[in-house]
Amino acid sequence: MEEIALPPFESLLALNAQSVEDLLRRLLDDRAREGEILRPGHLLAAMRHGVLNGGKRLRPFLVLESAALFDAQGMAALRVAAALECVHCYSLIHDDLPAMDDDDLRRGQPTVHRAFDEATAILAGDSLLTYAFDIIADAETELAAATRVELLAKLARAAGIGGMAGGQALDLLAERIPPDEAGIVQLQAMKTGALIRFACEAGAIIGEANRADRERLASFGAAIGLAFQLADDLLDLTASPETVGKATGKDAAAGKATLAALHGEEWARRQLLGLVAQAEELLEPYGEKAAVLRHAARFVAERDR
Amino acid sequence: MEEIALPPFESLLALNAQSVEDLLRRLLDDRAREGEILRPGHLLAAMRHGVLNGGKRLRPFLVLESAALFDAQGMAALRVAAALECVHCYSLIHDDLPAMDDDDLRRGQPTVHRAFDEATAILAGDSLLTYAFDIIADAETELAAATRVELLAKLARAAGIGGMAGGQALDLLAERIPPDEAGIVQLQAMKTGALIRFACEAGAIIGEANRADRERLASFGAAIGLAFQLADDLLDLTASPETVGKATGKDAAAGKATLAALHGEEWARRQLLGLVAQAEELLEPYGEKAAVLRHAARFVAERDR
Repeated sequence: MEEIALPPFESLLALNAQSVEDLLRRLLDDRAREGEILRPGHLLAAMRHGVLNGGKRLRPFLVLESAALFDAQGMAALRVAAALECVHCYSLIHDDLPAMDDDDLRRGQPTVHRAFDEATAILAGDSLLTYAFDIIADAETELAAATRVELLAKLARAAGIGGMAGGQALDLLAERIPPDEAGIVQLQAMKTGALIRFACEAGAIIGEANRADRERLASFGAAIGLAFQLADDLLDLTASPETVGKATGKDAAAGKATLAALHGEEWARRQLLGLVAQAEELLEPYGEKAAVLRHAARFVAERDR
Repeated sequence: MEEIALPPFESLLALNAQSVEDLLRRLLDDRAREGEILRPGHLLAAMRHGVLNGGKRLRPFLVLESAALFDAQGMAALRVAAALECVHCYSLIHDDLPAMDDDDLRRGQPTVHRAFDEATAILAGDSLLTYAFDIIADAETELAAATRVELLAKLARAAGIGGMAGGQALDLLAERIPPDEAGIVQLQAMKTGALIRFACEAGAIIGEANRADRERLASFGAAIGLAFQLADDLLDLTASPETVGKATGKDAAAGKATLAALHGEEWARRQLLGLVAQAEELLEPYGEKAAVLRHAARFVAERDR
């Protein structure tokens, strides 16, 4: 199949990120009152600090582009995308806490517990997670109630003990008891894979795709979730801190086993090619319409920071 | 109106608590796998520790009895009740953390971060909050999708920045900057009031009550939420540690202003009578059917521990 000319992928990503950020900024604006509801100023400020920090917004991008594949564009998809980003950012705020990864900086800025305090960071994470469900459940997310409830159920499943939160618990455990290969795969599928998979499946659900298409998009999300993690491990293993813009070699230093470290760089690069091929194959039925998502798969695998 | 003879209120409460606990025990049973989902053992154990700890289960009780008022009994109401208890228990786990209230004991047992560790306690709270939305969104909660999505939206609103989490942020702030009377009322309405109000409104929603009845139950919930907090403040002010089974005088020691401390014991007792009268008046249209909820209002106001 011939490729059509597309703007560079990073500008597409940035364009989507802008729309998502505009909405997040509106949802988290600094009005202390929203109708009858009082929003305590310092907690709201901490939530804004954790969310409006110039992330790549990869997960929202995947929601939006997956939804577009089924001709669903507009506010509903954007709100689900923004809600998912709230879940991602809550997880970063909690992961950065002293009791977890104890990080002082994220994207060159003080982490939320450094800019505010630990209690406020815990509550900001809690509030963002809660707000994500609020955003999707709200009638302003103009989707049938059955669609909203399906998205809420899948998001909760992807974020909870059997998904992201459980994966983080396994990751902390892995520093003390190194998992075997199957354990690493399971951990990563939960910690980073579940939300990326949800992002793609959510697009299909928003677009009211049939069951086969939903499963196809979920599988596409799972494949690029694996690629995302492998690329991350590879960067940590091989890149210089100058290229990545953050410390590398952290996994080895923390005694964390990764697949890339276990099998070596060459194996990891071969795996990445295989995952991209698998992701592209899954998109075949959608032809040219899926060109952006194909780009996304390559971007995730080839990113150099 | 004549009162019919009822079993002692505490046995009704215990009976409901048993049903809720049986379901919570099932939802959080120790199977590591639930279908395709892996539940990391130590995280699941921490969640169980935080939930299956012999609480009074007042919030679930209010869900069940409010639903019964509109002839809704059975599994749907029980699942919503259990989900709400998960939210309540998540908030206790996070409130107990060293960065928040730094408590070592809860109901005579080590708090979750003492029995496990801080990171696991944070993740157990996160996972319980997430699981609450999962439980309600799940199709096993046999309610129309529109009803489930309404419950999810209201629960998120009650638990988030404009409700419980925001109230906890205000409460932490109050230790440094004492709020005025309006500030105390606002703080308490958010921190403890929002979930109790939701409990009663949720029962009406589950029972597909009309708008007026829903608002009536929400107002009933708000009134007993105020009574609950006032009774709590009063206990802290006047009771001996032996009666209450925990340290008293904590509010004053922490420099926390309460309405009871501000206006004195006599005022607080008059207020409590007024709130119970208001709650009972709100239940008037339901006659004998609301006898248990009337008991609940009195129990909340008169409890001695």
